[in-house]
Amino acid sequence: MANFKGHALPGSFFLIFGLWWSVKYPLKYACRKNKKICFFGSKVGFQRVEVIEGAVKAIFSLIGMLAEQFVPDGPHLRLYNHEEKQWSHLMNWQHSTMYFFYGVSGVVDIITHTTKAVPVAMDRLMLAIAVFVEGFLFYYHVHGRQALDVHIHLLLLFAVFGGALCIFLEVFFRGNIILELFRSSLCILQGSWFWQIGFVLFPPGGGPEWNQNDHNNLMFITMCYCWHYAFALLFVGVNYGIVTW
Amino acid sequence: MANFKGHALPGSFFLIFGLWWSVKYPLKYACRKNKKICFFGSKVGFQRVEVIEGAVKAIFSLIGMLAEQFVPDGPHLRLYNHEEKQWSHLMNWQHSTMYFFYGVSGVVDIITHTTKAVPVAMDRLMLAIAVFVEGFLFYYHVHGRQALDVHIHLLLLFAVFGGALCIFLEVFFRGNIILELFRSSLCILQGSWFWQIGFVLFPPGGGPEWNQNDHNNLMFITMCYCWHYAFALLFVGVNYGIVTW
Amino acid sequence: MANFKGHALPGSFFLIFGLWWSVKYPLKYACRKNKKICFFGSKVGFQRVEVIEGAVKAIFSLIGMLAEQFVPDGPHLRLYNHEEKQWSHLMNWQHSTMYFFYGVSGVVDIITHTTKAVPVAMDRLMLAIAVFVEGFLFYYHVHGRQALDVHIHLLLLFAVFGGALCIFLEVFFRGNIILELFRSSLCILQGSWFWQIGFVLFPPGGGPEWNQNDHNNLMFITMCYCWHYAFALLFVGVNYGIVTW
Amino acid sequence: MANFKGHALPGSFFLIFGLWWSVKYPLKYACRKNKKICFFGSKVGFQRVEVIEGAVKAIFSLIGMLAEQFVPDGPHLRLYNHEEKQWSHLMNWQHSTMYFFYGVSGVVDIITHTTKAVPVAMDRLMLAIAVFVEGFLFYYHVHGRQALDVHIHLLLLFAVFGGALCIFLEVFFRGNIILELFRSSLCILQGSWFWQIGFVLFPPGGGPEWNQNDHNNLMFITMCYCWHYAFALLFVGVNYGIVTW
Repeated sequence: MANFKGHALPGSFFLIFGLWWSVKYPLKYACRKNKKICFFGSKVGFQRVEVIEGAVKAIFSLIGMLAEQFVPDGPHLRLYNHEEKQWSHLMNWQHSTMYFFYGVSGVVDIITHTTKAVPVAMDRLMLAIAVFVEGFLFYYHVHGRQALDVHIHLLLLFAVFGGALCIFLEVFFRGNIILELFRSSLCILQGSWFWQIGFVLFPPGGGPEWNQNDHNNLMFITMCYCWHYAFALLFVGVNYGIVTW
Repeated sequence: MANFKGHALPGSFFLIFGLWWSVKYPLKYACRKNKKICFFGSKVGFQRVEVIEGAVKAIFSLIGMLAEQFVPDGPHLRLYNHEEKQWSHLMNWQHSTMYFFYGVSGVVDIITHTTKAVPVAMDRLMLAIAVFVEGFLFYYHVHGRQALDVHIHLLLLFAVFGGALCIFLEVFFRGNIILELFRSSLCILQGSWFWQIGFVLFPPGGGPEWNQNDHNNLMFITMCYCWHYAFALLFVGVNYGIVTW
Repeated sequence: MANFKGHALPGSFFLIFGLWWSVKYPLKYACRKNKKICFFGSKVGFQRVEVIEGAVKAIFSLIGMLAEQFVPDGPHLRLYNHEEKQWSHLMNWQHSTMYFFYGVSGVVDIITHTTKAVPVAMDRLMLAIAVFVEGFLFYYHVHGRQALDVHIHLLLLFAVFGGALCIFLEVFFRGNIILELFRSSLCILQGSWFWQIGFVLFPPGGGPEWNQNDHNNLMFITMCYCWHYAFALLFVGVNYGIVTW
Repeated sequence: MANFKGHALPGSFFLIFGLWWSVKYPLKYACRKNKKICFFGSKVGFQRVEVIEGAVKAIFSLIGMLAEQFVPDGPHLRLYNHEEKQWSHLMNWQHSTMYFFYGVSGVVDIITHTTKAVPVAMDRLMLAIAVFVEGFLFYYHVHGRQALDVHIHLLLLFAVFGGALCIFLEVFFRGNIILELFRSSLCILQGSWFWQIGFVLFPPGGGPEWNQNDHNNLMFITMCYCWHYAFALLFVGVNYGIVTW
């Protein structure tokens, strides 16, 4: 949804997941290293956590899909507008598609960690596919918009495709704490950048609009992206420190 | 062949192979995990299956090559038209080349699994090369066509090059069920997308043609590609479920 | 800072680090192979070296940031010029950002090698991120300049992104002498190329300026880049020879 | 050198090396599998072969460099033409640079396999760098030429960069027969394609010139590249068969 809330909502989800991961993985790592102190429960406990995480992902995705479809100016499951002879609300459908893949990833998480039938790395492959699909749709999403709008969305792709690659590597290097923390930081970056996009393109409180074609704005935004990542790294670092301590 | 049948036929082959793989690899995986129940036969049985698969691939490729050459308006093995001073039926020759590499891949499959002279990973390398060559030729194939035509063919390249990369990884991680299922899903995607290209560019039954330059059509097609992949994943999942059960 | 000194200074830092690495890693490698002769100290000694290296990195970065901010024509920590309604000294801010990430990498080095809380591969991940951010900012930095200026900066990116990839691989292949020497050579290349950029764009001693759009200049510069790398390889080779001997 | 001989000569070198590798590596592989029959000599024998190979590479490169410099219309080691105020014979200098890196690779081969000081994977890294530099210079080489000329040279880059990647992988997977055969085939492809470029751009015997901008020619050349690769694979396969048998 092309407004402030439409960027703040998914941004919040990514932020929550990123921060949660930056707590979960250090905890898991500490438990593996030091089996005595670990009061969180054994392997079974972590497995339950994974199942809950998958369920939350699936439910959030379902809510997102329903919201995209049934907001007042949404498509209401209608794909083609026969009166106007054109596709109806393609934006909302694209967003629904993104949510759908995350939903599938959630369901696969649940199946992987409740039964033993599915190889355990399947959850990572499915998550990598979901993230890749998000980036793939975003890439073709911004075609034909203004310079700043395109640039600010394309910057997001570094976090998205970087994340997809990182998760795909986890298929082979499962449980590598470095990759897990890297993924957490990229997820936080994605979340906070969604908020930034909202603030830049739809200034809340009716602030002045940004000049879309000023080269300086483009250069500032690029730098700003790096600062966001610096903060994401800081958060991951602090969480890691607290958990280990 | 630039008509509906020319897209439906290779599409069907890819669909058949993708669905077959999505049955074969879970079966193999189940057999490895649970050696008792496995009534399919031991390693020898699977080796025989590989040989048959290679033979089918080689025969299909041969038929494809002959068809491309000897259809009424084909080149009949003539490469250069001396009267008109230009290359003759380049399209058909390009398709023949694609089939040829798949044929070589089939032959290498047979050699690899009947003799012990060739290292076993060679079949994957050759398949990766065949898939890459397909993508390589497709990439230069669409030069100078209309927007939707180009876009719908380029989308195919994600499945093709993704598949080539996945198969190349299998050279090093042979027997990794995750990669094998991923490959199956990409193969199904390729097959179903060939059908979709046929329906869009050559609507059977004389339906109305698509507007080639409408930006909405491009965006819809991009999304549609993701839906195809969702279905491909569903098929792989269902097949996996049935086989394991 | 767009002058000769602004390129010579970072160039010198990269040169020093590259040359230092081309001494350190062969030494470490020789010690591992031949534990008797090694008078440099054991594992503890190398750990102390890593900490010092991290500290030097952090201090240099801090100096760099302060210099960029507080030079006479610098931003003095002011980001937005409210009088002229535009961003203030974006260049200096971008350079500060680059230095900041190297500073974080230095701090992570220190933490990694003094405490045991952090997994040891974290220093490589953070360095890879710092190098990537440098390349990322450089890439968008040169937008809209003249042909030779753009080309000479983009050539730098081969060394930068090559280095980032190499360091990222070291997360998984830690202590691989091949990768470490490769990284050293790329670092020296980066350093010497910074000097070259300074000489070409801001000829010291008031030499004649280069024709920015002459195609021959572009081709010469490309070749010159390879020569720089040949020298970088030579230095690494000679250092390796001396150390091993 | 922009004439038929200037393409045929390097082409022949690549062909010879590719064919030689397609004999050497299967032989090595057969010896490793079947230690009794192997009459070629033990590890020492292969080491001597590597040294000779390195020497041949270095000598060929030296000859190539001298030829590029001292042909009648060559630069004779003069880099800048002070009379005309422009760079002198940049083409020849670029070719000399390419040869130089191959020469370094040859020298590193000799050092690696005669002394024990250098880690053995260094020869692969240096070869990968040499191949990459060749591709890098080629990429900027063709700037501003005609369509077919550019295309036919860029196609070469698939073999070059593919080869560089393959050799870089061998740093980590040394002695992997699949990668070695893949590299041989790409090397043969490069060699035969150099000959093809010579035939197309400088038809010997004064044949008619090719139309540089005809789209059909471009499409034919692309397909022709695949046929060259098919032949390269055939040669590798036949050599492998003969050696194993």
